[in-house]
Amino acid sequence: MLRIPYPDLESAFLKAILHLGVPPDRAPLCARLYAETDLDGVRTHGLARFPRFSAMIRNGNIVPTATPTLTSGFGAIERWNGHLGPGNLNAHAAMARAIELARANGIGAVALANTNHWMRGGSYGWQAATQGLFGICWTNTLANTPAWGTAKPTIGNNPIILAIPRSEAPVVLDMATTQFSMGSLSSYVQRKAQLPVPGGYDAQGNLTTDPAAIEASQRTLPIGFWKGSGLSLTLDMFAAMLSGGNSTHQLPLDPLKESGLSQFFLAIDPTNFADPAQLSQIAESILTDLHAAPPIDGTRPPRYPGEETLRLREENLAQGVPVDETLWQKLNNLTI
Amino acid sequence: MLRIPYPDLESAFLKAILHLGVPPDRAPLCARLYAETDLDGVRTHGLARFPRFSAMIRNGNIVPTATPTLTSGFGAIERWNGHLGPGNLNAHAAMARAIELARANGIGAVALANTNHWMRGGSYGWQAATQGLFGICWTNTLANTPAWGTAKPTIGNNPIILAIPRSEAPVVLDMATTQFSMGSLSSYVQRKAQLPVPGGYDAQGNLTTDPAAIEASQRTLPIGFWKGSGLSLTLDMFAAMLSGGNSTHQLPLDPLKESGLSQFFLAIDPTNFADPAQLSQIAESILTDLHAAPPIDGTRPPRYPGEETLRLREENLAQGVPVDETLWQKLNNLTI
Repeated sequence: MLRIPYPDLESAFLKAILHLGVPPDRAPLCARLYAETDLDGVRTHGLARFPRFSAMIRNGNIVPTATPTLTSGFGAIERWNGHLGPGNLNAHAAMARAIELARANGIGAVALANTNHWMRGGSYGWQAATQGLFGICWTNTLANTPAWGTAKPTIGNNPIILAIPRSEAPVVLDMATTQFSMGSLSSYVQRKAQLPVPGGYDAQGNLTTDPAAIEASQRTLPIGFWKGSGLSLTLDMFAAMLSGGNSTHQLPLDPLKESGLSQFFLAIDPTNFADPAQLSQIAESILTDLHAAPPIDGTRPPRYPGEETLRLREENLAQGVPVDETLWQKLNNLTI
Repeated sequence: MLRIPYPDLESAFLKAILHLGVPPDRAPLCARLYAETDLDGVRTHGLARFPRFSAMIRNGNIVPTATPTLTSGFGAIERWNGHLGPGNLNAHAAMARAIELARANGIGAVALANTNHWMRGGSYGWQAATQGLFGICWTNTLANTPAWGTAKPTIGNNPIILAIPRSEAPVVLDMATTQFSMGSLSSYVQRKAQLPVPGGYDAQGNLTTDPAAIEASQRTLPIGFWKGSGLSLTLDMFAAMLSGGNSTHQLPLDPLKESGLSQFFLAIDPTNFADPAQLSQIAESILTDLHAAPPIDGTRPPRYPGEETLRLREENLAQGVPVDETLWQKLNNLTI
């Protein structure tokens, strides 16, 4: 593992992204979203995901020049078509539009069809919260999880993000509806580590903490068993129906062809109906109460979602961003 | 267990609710919401909860005559104050207002402060979906669940509802963010049954399927371990901050004093930006795919959230609604 100065990482991403055909006016944001993902310590969805991004541009499933367009809208909600453009750029544009709608209407939403993997979903929660808005968004995915009651992958693990603005640092929950995201599972496999809690079933149908057995059986576990299964199904229905786009069962099972996703973005601007001092007081009182709870393990006190992000960001800005050496070389050689 | 004709159940609720001081113009809706909960088979939150409702009117924590008022608003989102009125009436009014806002703006939301337990959260999902709208709502609760990393109950199990309109029958997810709601846990205890999956920790800190051990330790398990813990915390922050009301840690730990909750209601009216035939086609294709998945147990095919509701409703309309005999007598004697 290398540590690379953040500006070098962002500029290496930029060169590679330009090389892949993303236009110069849009490539810098795409590069920043990738680089910030590693900067914030979400290593499963930054450079580690870039080979798939470049492969999908080469195989035509991501159209590097495409930009989203408005399909229809009414009041504070709109449907957009991502035209299979880069997923992080489409998602950023969709949340940006939801924020505009929220500024004008208190609340705003965008349902986005025909888009691609948004990489780190938390990016769009941070996008809303750092501008003072509450944000919620989710995406569907290819069928990677058996619905409750079947062993066949039929539902996605449809990550959902909830973001809360806060003066010090936003609270950002970014979670797949399975116990472990596919990226996280494969990271455990690579490290030859066991999962801390059961993450799915083995081929014999027993709950297991062996990530390789779960990758082999394809029986990942929804959070809360039947509950996460139902949550995932309903998130897919919301995203596909509101956007008019594909649902999970219509997406190819090959991750290199997982294109044409449906997503939903919601923003709430409290400026015109709430007192900022009151909002801040409520947020701080909740987090103070959380932090005051006695930890089971003294070294691991209760934390709020995203609490580690700023610390990791500062550490990585100071010491360099950890990257895989092989991928870093490929990124710089434009052979990724 | 008795089976009572539905109209008799609703009228018995109505008499008891009038006796408790809910005004005649509002009591019928309150009674219908209670009776429909048992009718739809959600027995943990209908008649079984009524003794607590009446006790909380008697101890002053529910104000039977209170009606919600507008606190502030901007565009498509509003803050309301429930003035500690009956929780199901406040929640119904909040979702009704969110629906009005959504009809005018495509999307609408109400954040409700100072309210009471809404009983069956799914009621307000059905309310939106049967009128053709998508609905999302959630509530905070008293601290009944340890946040991840502590053994002390610090977060609520904050039920969340996602409802999708559909011509045949809506899809309605209604779930607590713990593996088992408190009502469900106590129902297992009463039946002296073990939980089908671990629902929390025993006093020694081991995961257990023994509901009594979990009630004793107060260590209920969030869905997905740390994930449900983060979800519950963020839902509380949204509800309390947007409504300007109480957060979980401010609510008394005595269930008979669990008053002054914060809730959030969102509705989306697709009429003016989506083609109804397309929406229906997408919904049916998702559910057809779900139902086509081979079941692990042939007698228990994969189901969508709420799928059993209409069947139970028809069965209970035809055969009478199952009620506990003792509670039924008390309801009729106005001694409940």
